[in-house]
Amino acid sequence: MDFQQQARPEEGIYMEGILYGVGVGAGDPEMLSLKAARILRQADIVCIPRAHKASCRAYQIAVQAVPEIAGKEALCFDFAMTEDNRLLQETHGRFYQTLRPVLAAGKSAAFLTIGDPAIYSTFSCIAALAQADGHSVRTVSGITSFCAAAAACGIDLCSGHEELHIIPGRRKSIQESLRYPGTKVIMKSGRNISTIKEALLQLEQAGSVSVYAVQDCGLPEEKILSGAQAIPDDGYMTTIIVKAAEQVSPPATRP
Amino acid sequence: MDFQQQARPEEGIYMEGILYGVGVGAGDPEMLSLKAARILRQADIVCIPRAHKASCRAYQIAVQAVPEIAGKEALCFDFAMTEDNRLLQETHGRFYQTLRPVLAAGKSAAFLTIGDPAIYSTFSCIAALAQADGHSVRTVSGITSFCAAAAACGIDLCSGHEELHIIPGRRKSIQESLRYPGTKVIMKSGRNISTIKEALLQLEQAGSVSVYAVQDCGLPEEKILSGAQAIPDDGYMTTIIVKAAEQVSPPATRP
Repeated sequence: MDFQQQARPEEGIYMEGILYGVGVGAGDPEMLSLKAARILRQADIVCIPRAHKASCRAYQIAVQAVPEIAGKEALCFDFAMTEDNRLLQETHGRFYQTLRPVLAAGKSAAFLTIGDPAIYSTFSCIAALAQADGHSVRTVSGITSFCAAAAACGIDLCSGHEELHIIPGRRKSIQESLRYPGTKVIMKSGRNISTIKEALLQLEQAGSVSVYAVQDCGLPEEKILSGAQAIPDDGYMTTIIVKAAEQVSPPATRP
Repeated sequence: MDFQQQARPEEGIYMEGILYGVGVGAGDPEMLSLKAARILRQADIVCIPRAHKASCRAYQIAVQAVPEIAGKEALCFDFAMTEDNRLLQETHGRFYQTLRPVLAAGKSAAFLTIGDPAIYSTFSCIAALAQADGHSVRTVSGITSFCAAAAACGIDLCSGHEELHIIPGRRKSIQESLRYPGTKVIMKSGRNISTIKEALLQLEQAGSVSVYAVQDCGLPEEKILSGAQAIPDDGYMTTIIVKAAEQVSPPATRP
């Protein structure tokens, strides 16, 4: 599918806009895909899911890979970090009202997301609104934080018959989820981090798991951590990989 | 981490080689990362996990994104597709014997993998051998088939508190795994495809899941399928996404 086949709108003619969800990967700007870089160069405006460019990690990653986006029109919006579904929907609706005239004018907008737009991203909510409104929506995949974290640790995530489970750390039943066979990845631990850390310490002491964690993956301040005790108490940008003990072979050197 | 900091070996001086595992993504050559493209341009040799370049899907993807690799020395090797662990280890050992002199000469080798090298890839086995032999190993992450498949279907994989489970289709306990909450991705179904299809049809009829599948994701022959009945009987290059019914909102348009 060649995005370039999309004709550009001519002056005065209404054309349907396109909303792109662009995954910028896990932190290293070089992890953007060739397609993500092209779409960012071509897009008319860039949607930034923070109040300011400066505080938006996804933008800071993207602008290093594609400096041209600094000169583009930017739609900054402060998405409330909340667990309240009604409040979330209201916020998404308010953001969409600012995006709507852009798409109605036949422009293309690139909505930046860390990692991949299909995994715990605000993009899918915005995409549903745009689509219900008759606009085209396209997802440009990105490298997930768990793939990048595994690469940083020099380990694999799964092989052969092993399962891989991606678990949001704020899930209440986290202890239950840690019983799944194979590898567990815990993402977005946030306020639940102390419960998770305690559960992992117990599993580690029982000799049943090996714990790896990467904080600020791919960024200059990246930290690679080994063992549950090393997991920082602010879990926001930390990806935790829990391997069943029988899975673990000596890790490869740090990339 | 800048790979370019690695000095090139001078004539006659022994230097340690580097083995890169390079994820080429799910099919669309434009899904390669900027880093994957750079490493492929810089690598001395390219390792191709098939008997010939022509039959290697990972190579066919990579060469479209980085045509320069066609002119590089290629190490083709036919990895036996087997469930026999002893035979697998023997095959990996035999391949490593052909790679060893390359690394010992201080050359860099890029081992191609579809998707991401940390997810069901032969690379991790070869990496362990190279590392045990004293060589540096680095993983260049790729876009996974399940992220690309979700993008093709115009759906997300998980949001909020939902879990995501990656399940190899050849797993005997597949019916059990299909009971996990949240989204299930079934990969590499192969010979088990009829059992999987039957289990999915039952869940579908009970109204508890929505089934999506993508065959040959990202390639010109890509097929996007909806419903378990549409899953082809040869499941090799088919990624199946099973969403719990309560998760499903109207899908976005095809990208």
